[in-house]
Amino acid sequence: MSHNSFGHLFRVTTWGESHGPALGCVVDGCPSLIGITEEEIQFWMDRRKPGQNRFTTQRKEPDTVKILSGVFEGKTTGTPISLMIENVDQRSKDYGDIKEKFRPGHADYAYQTKYGIRDYRGGGRSSARETAARVAAGALARKILGEGVKIQGYLTQIGDQVIDRNRFDAEEIEKNAFWCPDPVAAKGWEEYLDGIRKSGSSVGAVIEVVASGVPAGLGAPIYGKLDSDLAGAMMTINAVKGVEIGEGFSAAALTGEDNADEMRQGNGKDPRFMSNHAGGILGGISTGQDIVVRFAVKPTSSILKTRDTVTIEGDNTEIITKGRHDPCVGIRAVPVGEAMMACVLADHLLRHRGQQG
Amino acid sequence: MSHNSFGHLFRVTTWGESHGPALGCVVDGCPSLIGITEEEIQFWMDRRKPGQNRFTTQRKEPDTVKILSGVFEGKTTGTPISLMIENVDQRSKDYGDIKEKFRPGHADYAYQTKYGIRDYRGGGRSSARETAARVAAGALARKILGEGVKIQGYLTQIGDQVIDRNRFDAEEIEKNAFWCPDPVAAKGWEEYLDGIRKSGSSVGAVIEVVASGVPAGLGAPIYGKLDSDLAGAMMTINAVKGVEIGEGFSAAALTGEDNADEMRQGNGKDPRFMSNHAGGILGGISTGQDIVVRFAVKPTSSILKTRDTVTIEGDNTEIITKGRHDPCVGIRAVPVGEAMMACVLADHLLRHRGQQG
Amino acid sequence: MSHNSFGHLFRVTTWGESHGPALGCVVDGCPSLIGITEEEIQFWMDRRKPGQNRFTTQRKEPDTVKILSGVFEGKTTGTPISLMIENVDQRSKDYGDIKEKFRPGHADYAYQTKYGIRDYRGGGRSSARETAARVAAGALARKILGEGVKIQGYLTQIGDQVIDRNRFDAEEIEKNAFWCPDPVAAKGWEEYLDGIRKSGSSVGAVIEVVASGVPAGLGAPIYGKLDSDLAGAMMTINAVKGVEIGEGFSAAALTGEDNADEMRQGNGKDPRFMSNHAGGILGGISTGQDIVVRFAVKPTSSILKTRDTVTIEGDNTEIITKGRHDPCVGIRAVPVGEAMMACVLADHLLRHRGQQG
Amino acid sequence: MSHNSFGHLFRVTTWGESHGPALGCVVDGCPSLIGITEEEIQFWMDRRKPGQNRFTTQRKEPDTVKILSGVFEGKTTGTPISLMIENVDQRSKDYGDIKEKFRPGHADYAYQTKYGIRDYRGGGRSSARETAARVAAGALARKILGEGVKIQGYLTQIGDQVIDRNRFDAEEIEKNAFWCPDPVAAKGWEEYLDGIRKSGSSVGAVIEVVASGVPAGLGAPIYGKLDSDLAGAMMTINAVKGVEIGEGFSAAALTGEDNADEMRQGNGKDPRFMSNHAGGILGGISTGQDIVVRFAVKPTSSILKTRDTVTIEGDNTEIITKGRHDPCVGIRAVPVGEAMMACVLADHLLRHRGQQG
Repeated sequence: MSHNSFGHLFRVTTWGESHGPALGCVVDGCPSLIGITEEEIQFWMDRRKPGQNRFTTQRKEPDTVKILSGVFEGKTTGTPISLMIENVDQRSKDYGDIKEKFRPGHADYAYQTKYGIRDYRGGGRSSARETAARVAAGALARKILGEGVKIQGYLTQIGDQVIDRNRFDAEEIEKNAFWCPDPVAAKGWEEYLDGIRKSGSSVGAVIEVVASGVPAGLGAPIYGKLDSDLAGAMMTINAVKGVEIGEGFSAAALTGEDNADEMRQGNGKDPRFMSNHAGGILGGISTGQDIVVRFAVKPTSSILKTRDTVTIEGDNTEIITKGRHDPCVGIRAVPVGEAMMACVLADHLLRHRGQQG
Repeated sequence: MSHNSFGHLFRVTTWGESHGPALGCVVDGCPSLIGITEEEIQFWMDRRKPGQNRFTTQRKEPDTVKILSGVFEGKTTGTPISLMIENVDQRSKDYGDIKEKFRPGHADYAYQTKYGIRDYRGGGRSSARETAARVAAGALARKILGEGVKIQGYLTQIGDQVIDRNRFDAEEIEKNAFWCPDPVAAKGWEEYLDGIRKSGSSVGAVIEVVASGVPAGLGAPIYGKLDSDLAGAMMTINAVKGVEIGEGFSAAALTGEDNADEMRQGNGKDPRFMSNHAGGILGGISTGQDIVVRFAVKPTSSILKTRDTVTIEGDNTEIITKGRHDPCVGIRAVPVGEAMMACVLADHLLRHRGQQG
Repeated sequence: MSHNSFGHLFRVTTWGESHGPALGCVVDGCPSLIGITEEEIQFWMDRRKPGQNRFTTQRKEPDTVKILSGVFEGKTTGTPISLMIENVDQRSKDYGDIKEKFRPGHADYAYQTKYGIRDYRGGGRSSARETAARVAAGALARKILGEGVKIQGYLTQIGDQVIDRNRFDAEEIEKNAFWCPDPVAAKGWEEYLDGIRKSGSSVGAVIEVVASGVPAGLGAPIYGKLDSDLAGAMMTINAVKGVEIGEGFSAAALTGEDNADEMRQGNGKDPRFMSNHAGGILGGISTGQDIVVRFAVKPTSSILKTRDTVTIEGDNTEIITKGRHDPCVGIRAVPVGEAMMACVLADHLLRHRGQQG
Repeated sequence: MSHNSFGHLFRVTTWGESHGPALGCVVDGCPSLIGITEEEIQFWMDRRKPGQNRFTTQRKEPDTVKILSGVFEGKTTGTPISLMIENVDQRSKDYGDIKEKFRPGHADYAYQTKYGIRDYRGGGRSSARETAARVAAGALARKILGEGVKIQGYLTQIGDQVIDRNRFDAEEIEKNAFWCPDPVAAKGWEEYLDGIRKSGSSVGAVIEVVASGVPAGLGAPIYGKLDSDLAGAMMTINAVKGVEIGEGFSAAALTGEDNADEMRQGNGKDPRFMSNHAGGILGGISTGQDIVVRFAVKPTSSILKTRDTVTIEGDNTEIITKGRHDPCVGIRAVPVGEAMMACVLADHLLRHRGQQG
């Protein structure tokens, strides 16, 4: 057991606080002889890093990743890979007020109650900065999965604005600030989120992550089910309040015949599925279809609106949270969700290989 | 790592197939000197056992639990507790047809592809019979949590029929066959589910499980978050396709100010929360509020409707699944969801005590 | 984490007490499609079972193993394998005296202090009966390792009687009651141990277990080193007080040049080693040479000699332990040591395959 | 599972190679509110660091430890503690020859065979430099254990030179270069080891580590036995080939009556033990007596003597290992053994508290 680790054969341990000198992760169990460079990891880091447009936090962090161990002459050696990202733009003075008061909806109160101490600067360990380490680990996981596995995340909803699936165009995802596959929606979201941002408020989002090319057979029933591990992994991302696989909550309203993904003879030895209500997982095991995971992110709890709260002594007070915050932290959750998908799949690929050869 | 275990300090390992001689679990890490009898465990078993009314499978299983180890003179000894439930009503001949064909939406195909073999009798390991072992373990977990923690599950939706929260009455839950807290809805569901059942179809459901009296401080960020462990745990239950904490997916549409659970000075040292959008968990740590988890169960995939599928050789065919099946497996998922809640909370109680004393 | 489990991909959880209704284990992670029958497991059980000659406990236990799950039509299915052995010859009345008194050198005091309760009947969980479950699991592990891996244990010392390595003859091991490879020593041990037994005393032993045919590359530095896992595994066997790999403690007195296992070009791609001081493991990884592990077992603490002790209230008293005990529990530790070797190697075989393919 | 982690509630993950930019560890699960500074950790680092006298490697490493996370305003916060030590004196050119040849008795061959690649510079991951991270973690573990627990390691043997236990004087341990408790032996060892060193050879050693003040009740039978975890932990230290608890291998030759640690009524509720053959552990659980662990370290395999070996292509060759090496790596193993004792005890303290409160 380790509170700050996930995965089993591909195991990631993260460390670091928002305003400490650095954060990072140790990736253990990575197969040897995998070519990897800091530049390749940086490519994924840059997709998550803050301050890239007006819809995310204005904290300026280059999120430059350094490989400290486990890679020799450009290849993994099978030993633990230590990755470090230095914090450079902390501005701790911004956070004076939250030292004494709990932000409603934030982890402040829970950390203080559990540990009797908390690093209040920028949320400390509970800050979304921790997710940078996941993205770094995810870059390695993608290498293990290989070129055949594609992982793509995108927003399907921001606040109460939902995409129109009829306009879904994967090409659009990287063309707007929202990882939005619906170009019409993306346009509208700019104005919508500008309004949220200017009012000092925030909204939530729904992110969908799809992995294609995943071989059948990954996942280890009963308590190592692929969907269980994916649900658990996504729920560890800051602010996530719900996770769905495939049809998700909509499946409750379906009949057995509508929900059944019928099968027909395929070209090779594998059958074709006529639909994918299951989201690519049956009985906790991948079927070879696209793995489809969706998760809901709540609105950022650090807002410029006045809210009732208490001090750490328990007295009534009010709080307005200044500082630099994402008006919708769900946007930057897209590369994080992709990274978690990659890590979970890489772990299960190794686990399956271990048990079944 | 263990595919068939969950929990860390309170650790449950389950074993057994639908049509084998028995199934059971080993519970390790249970504190010593806890009074427990077979009768106390049986009380919870009886809530889940099949064949109690026309809305669940007609398989007759007494689900009699035996304590094989770890309890001495009525008290736990701190050593592993082995619990066994013998299967008595297998009727394996019912399942001849599924030996050669894959049920769409069922784990058949995935197990065969992963393992190259499957115990097709009653679904083997993928059968919901496995959940009996969880309920047995949950009875122990409840003992660890003590009288102060109450765990209550119920259906909020069956098929497309949703309860009216204005009619919510906890007293009603145990008075109908559906664990339904809305007496009007419960009445309507009888006719609705009779229709589904008689047509040979099935529907899904949404289950909500609430734990009250849970102390603040449980949960271990980042990858041992209480909500992550709950999401992972619920997703291991057969047929579950989605999990939410508190506001869940609805949180995406809220603004930061609406979602914030404001705090006011309490009577003692703990503050009062003015709402519970968070579902009792902030930053992965319990806050002392009610823990609220919801999960969606898909419709049973074993139905009397004809569906297209393939044989294990990959040839096109059709299938109708005879045998005894739950028209809505979500009903019996209520005691299972409660048990998983109990197990996860008990584990985190011990983990918190280990780290923080 | 699980106190009563070991291994990672091949994971064994044991349960049961000396005088409970049964004991057993759950083996998780076993690859599918491995042929296994109860008879094959029984073959190994019979080597460990008590009462086979006058040098071991006279408790009569057939140690009949039952497969309760995970095997279908003679083959493993990849799901957990539950194995159960019923206790039939408990005779609990023999143990009345130890209810109130602690046997010096026995786990009685430690269990009572830790748990505040203990199943004093036959030592409860601390009884060597628990090792029956390991032998059952070891039978499965041997199947995973395949025919190419041979595991052989034997005694090299009993009390102060040490074998003469010049007379080492592997053929002799199964021909005497002591798993002794030195026929002259074996002859002498009969008289020696008869004396010990008749005087109501006991002695310790040293067991050596050798695995040949183990592929190079097993073991995962740093904290999953093969020798670390072997040392930990052997030290879990009742009464073991020391473990050595290869040269062991003698290595301390060697010079670097004497201890170096020089290498020469082999016939194939693998080199030949000119000696095996390392015991087949370098840097925590198997080299392809024989794996050589030795462990020391202390004398049985349940003896017919009067010893000073205290009652559970802490008052001074004396104790003589009646009942049926092994005059040298080290003899029956041989099949147990072999089983632990098999389980550790099988686990590492799967782990290596998982990481390195 | 994680190959490069140990412990469960107090969990340490190490990373880094001998000639990489840095090495370090992440300590997870440490309770909050423990006061700790870099200076306090450095105190222990300085006891292990190389180049302090002519009997250890002449590599000059300050081994300056930096706290990167998990400590706020001088106290632990309950979040992961990342500790880093930069390598400053690598001199990689010293190691040119071992790129192409395997040192007999060294991990070179095993790493190459397992991973198909190895960081040959200074032994890469297999270097004893890794143990610096353990000593850093051990400093935290000692804080958890508190002032009441004393851990002291020392050499009882170097090469074939054994101390005289009649001259044992704990005060002497820190007064010589060998952590030797026998002042007469220590004097003789200088000349002895100078001879070994000057001849380009090396010798092994036996280290004893004693922990006093450890509360009774730590250890979790069966597979989490305290002695099993200690044996496994010590065996992960570079070059260790054997581990003993208490009487160890000598216990094999004792009779049951001689080995029994008799008990007498104590002053308080705890009894007094009249001897400590058990080394403070019975049935895998601490008894309150001193925990006594001994381990044997083989001679350094990097020596200036010519040895036969093969190239990575498998051809016959010879090797002399130049560079800076410890003539007896066992000397610097003393602080490492102490650290491992501290880490294992701290972990079990938290585990016991978790289960038993």
